[in-house]
Amino acid sequence: MENLATPALVVDAAVLRANIERLAAYARGHRLRVRPHTKTHKSVYVASLQVAAGANALTAAKAGEAEIMATVCEDILVAYPPVDPERCAQIAALATHRTVRVALDSITAAQRMAQAAAAARSRVGVLVDVDVGMGRTGVQTPEEALRLAEVIDRDPSLHLDGIMYYPGHVWSPPGEQDEALRKVATRLEEVIGLWTKGGLKAGIVSGGSTPTAYQSHLIPQTTEIRPGTYVFNDMNTVHGGFCTIDDCAARIICTVVSTAIPGQFVIDGGTKTFTSDRCIPKPESGYGHIIEYPEARVFALSEEHGQVDARECSRAPKVGERVTVIPNHICPCVNLLDSFWVAEPGNPLRRTAVDARGKLT
Amino acid sequence: MENLATPALVVDAAVLRANIERLAAYARGHRLRVRPHTKTHKSVYVASLQVAAGANALTAAKAGEAEIMATVCEDILVAYPPVDPERCAQIAALATHRTVRVALDSITAAQRMAQAAAAARSRVGVLVDVDVGMGRTGVQTPEEALRLAEVIDRDPSLHLDGIMYYPGHVWSPPGEQDEALRKVATRLEEVIGLWTKGGLKAGIVSGGSTPTAYQSHLIPQTTEIRPGTYVFNDMNTVHGGFCTIDDCAARIICTVVSTAIPGQFVIDGGTKTFTSDRCIPKPESGYGHIIEYPEARVFALSEEHGQVDARECSRAPKVGERVTVIPNHICPCVNLLDSFWVAEPGNPLRRTAVDARGKLT
Repeated sequence: MENLATPALVVDAAVLRANIERLAAYARGHRLRVRPHTKTHKSVYVASLQVAAGANALTAAKAGEAEIMATVCEDILVAYPPVDPERCAQIAALATHRTVRVALDSITAAQRMAQAAAAARSRVGVLVDVDVGMGRTGVQTPEEALRLAEVIDRDPSLHLDGIMYYPGHVWSPPGEQDEALRKVATRLEEVIGLWTKGGLKAGIVSGGSTPTAYQSHLIPQTTEIRPGTYVFNDMNTVHGGFCTIDDCAARIICTVVSTAIPGQFVIDGGTKTFTSDRCIPKPESGYGHIIEYPEARVFALSEEHGQVDARECSRAPKVGERVTVIPNHICPCVNLLDSFWVAEPGNPLRRTAVDARGKLT
Repeated sequence: MENLATPALVVDAAVLRANIERLAAYARGHRLRVRPHTKTHKSVYVASLQVAAGANALTAAKAGEAEIMATVCEDILVAYPPVDPERCAQIAALATHRTVRVALDSITAAQRMAQAAAAARSRVGVLVDVDVGMGRTGVQTPEEALRLAEVIDRDPSLHLDGIMYYPGHVWSPPGEQDEALRKVATRLEEVIGLWTKGGLKAGIVSGGSTPTAYQSHLIPQTTEIRPGTYVFNDMNTVHGGFCTIDDCAARIICTVVSTAIPGQFVIDGGTKTFTSDRCIPKPESGYGHIIEYPEARVFALSEEHGQVDARECSRAPKVGERVTVIPNHICPCVNLLDSFWVAEPGNPLRRTAVDARGKLT
């Protein structure tokens, strides 16, 4: 570890496997399928562990990610509206040899996907994106959901597979989510009721997020969940009350590069390592948590500098010392890296690629 | 342009060249050397334009960037303390066949660099990093600057080249910087005075930032400047009053992927495209500026979604429409990309690599 070029992301394989297995066991117990969102790790290695633990489908946000993940799994959901022509063409091509589904919320998106699928002579499954309270994407009413479902159902290049929802607005502690999730269930019930009347079936009802993952059974319509962050965890999930520091599988090793300013030290990771994402449940907590200096606060980031307030620390770190940082939001951090290190108990560190890094389209 | 997979970064080559030439002309007029910071573009293509316009040296933040930039320039400054052993070794190796300088603010960093240079049988130039008010790195007093300079001067594997300062705390409009820059000049005068008494020479006094670039002559000790953002510009430099929208050479083309939520539209770029950097001079302005919808505000970003408030817009965009976004901070955006497109008047778009993308170490 002392010879790693820093900053370096090290993943504890034992913690990673435990995170994956814990979710898999919950899902088995509640007869839910798991379709992990691979945007968190963008890694064929991690996706393979998820598939081995029972995930029989994967989620990606972009077509480029889907292409990579299709190398380890037969069934891929692009949980994102495929609208630009290049993205539609890529997805349609992938659907010639894989089960590919997309989520969308507009007739335009459905038509563009259908045109691309027709041109590629493939058929693409569609989930209608229903907004359940986040207000980001998703049709707003059961009537709109029905109208869009009918358009999709009629198109020979598309297949109406069901509904996608994302409860991304729910960040309350696990024990306090019941009311918010009950509202989600009511909305889904209305949509499914209208579809049933109209002769349409929602075979898949795809939900899930890491904060709500273990309460997914409270939304009984759900057939599968799509958590992402749970594989690694981060300060968002720690401060949200969804896990402990010990459940954080991904940690960034940094070197202290300067102690010139009194009461402060500087580590060799900034926004190009940690991103400038604040912690969602605790925005003023700084930019990550330093294991060796729990009282320290990473109060400012430049691109390659992390400025740490050390005034509350019982000792002052020295230039050259190594520290271990858990970022606020691990997903965009991984995307900044070409590779990360896997720490397998009893073995030397092994480097593995971030295969879908930077797949923006 | 309509067939580009989005999000896509397009650089207007005419604006880019004008930005480079404007700075070069200012520097010629004031007999300053230009050592552009390549962290902004991480591109051999852009670096070559800077060298062609008279920059006879380049700046990098990390060893990996320096290696790439050394393919187009003989003289590279790593404006960052080389402390971790891998980084020191990389820099020392580069110094066997290039003029390599580093900036540092501690005896530990100097010793580690010297050890690596001795092992590689190379000699590395050093600038003493002097804090002139930003409070990030840099020695705090002229006495500390002298002490460190003496250590460096005595070491046969190092060469004392001078002083580096970074006025990163100065973001006031160009016409209001005089007092802040006078303080910088006073601090430098004290340091140089003490060095002179001690028989040491600051051959290079390296300053500069984009916001202060055109006022560099107000710090008369300066021999070279290191602006980065000026090549592309962004909403930071526009809202800071350092350029206009027309001077922004780098623009990100996005597709509108959803209009499901009333009063809002969603573009296919989020934090993995734009980063979550706020605008420094105008933090509440949102995450970038949309050329076609100047009244719109990008109020929230997820990883791949940009949520835009369209309530003030005179018309509502449609799903599938393309929009052009100027990000708040272009440097970390470029680092998220493998390549960008160059728009040369009268020519088809040409793709060029972000050669030093992701060089964190």
